[in-house]
Amino acid sequence: MADQPHFELFAFWRTSATYRVRVAMNLKGLIAHERIVNLEAGEQRGEAFLKINPLGAIPALVEDGFPPITQSLAILEFLDETAPSPPLLPPDPHGRARVRSIAAMLAADTHPLITPRVRRYLTAQGFDDAAWRAWQTQWFSTGLLAVEQRLASESATGVYCHGDAVTTADVLLMSIVVMTRIFKIDVPGVPTIDRIVARCEAQEAFIKADPMRQDGAPQG
Amino acid sequence: MADQPHFELFAFWRTSATYRVRVAMNLKGLIAHERIVNLEAGEQRGEAFLKINPLGAIPALVEDGFPPITQSLAILEFLDETAPSPPLLPPDPHGRARVRSIAAMLAADTHPLITPRVRRYLTAQGFDDAAWRAWQTQWFSTGLLAVEQRLASESATGVYCHGDAVTTADVLLMSIVVMTRIFKIDVPGVPTIDRIVARCEAQEAFIKADPMRQDGAPQG
Repeated sequence: MADQPHFELFAFWRTSATYRVRVAMNLKGLIAHERIVNLEAGEQRGEAFLKINPLGAIPALVEDGFPPITQSLAILEFLDETAPSPPLLPPDPHGRARVRSIAAMLAADTHPLITPRVRRYLTAQGFDDAAWRAWQTQWFSTGLLAVEQRLASESATGVYCHGDAVTTADVLLMSIVVMTRIFKIDVPGVPTIDRIVARCEAQEAFIKADPMRQDGAPQG
Repeated sequence: MADQPHFELFAFWRTSATYRVRVAMNLKGLIAHERIVNLEAGEQRGEAFLKINPLGAIPALVEDGFPPITQSLAILEFLDETAPSPPLLPPDPHGRARVRSIAAMLAADTHPLITPRVRRYLTAQGFDDAAWRAWQTQWFSTGLLAVEQRLASESATGVYCHGDAVTTADVLLMSIVVMTRIFKIDVPGVPTIDRIVARCEAQEAFIKADPMRQDGAPQG
């Protein structure tokens, strides 16, 4: 990989969106110099990081000489276009649409509801810890049960979400499952997801990306 | 267009995600036979539609002989891959990443927070109309102001969000602006967005997709 572009990844151990980028880069054998933006210390709103991304959002992938790329879905598409092996999308347009649709069910319909900014807003509106936990459970469950229904019923499901190779859909699925574990939210009744998760989490690309193994994660 | 595939689009006049697909198909000169799924009458949960999409989600684009494609971002990518002229994404990977990133800021970070299912949940938690309106205003403003900041500061912005041709970013931007109008939410302080919106809404592809011009929309 001596000739890969030089990447910096602005990241934090815990975030689901950063995890997705780590997995994709691991799968493709790409290396990024990771720069920690400590969200707990508010570094995403600090002067140093705002020079990288004025919006204060991570992950941000910076290739030498180019503007930062933000938004995990956009970063995954970029990596797949510029480092196509192994592919994160199937070759046929209908298959690609199915993978992107499953990914969007998790990246768009599920994850944005369970972010710190939403928690801050609802807490100011009187949500206590129990109400927030019910909210998390509601949207994690809704998203994962909907994906389970598709995976269990659609013939394109294979060893992974789509056929027998890892795609963006698996990366997104794992990123949500990893969040449910961090937040200790149990979503029962998803046997197809459980089967695919077991297959993914045996792989080095996913293991190395595990939030609990990153710099800054709590010990033990 | 005699040789285009036969498409059915399961749709409802008001939804932002359906609007995006209509605009993209109009831009590409594609025609879909539109099938109304009346969300106000609960038809998305009716037996007939659940045979098309067991998840009850619109839009769903069905090409003869293939499973339905759901999720507007996935449908837009599919249309761009299968009917590439005019393109909805720029040719270079960094440009494509920027367009997809702006689109995701609106499709993922903004729109999912302001959906009927979220409203139902918050209403059950005691949100009255004023609290819901404040919630809508918060997330429409957050999303649009973040996009404005990028558009105003990044050199890749042109006549449209990215350069001088319509891209997926403009389609997403318009879909959110159209929602703010339907809900009568005012987001001031976005001059670059205002300029791009004025340019888009002068175009036939956007005009024809306007929710208020669709079958089922309220009159007058």
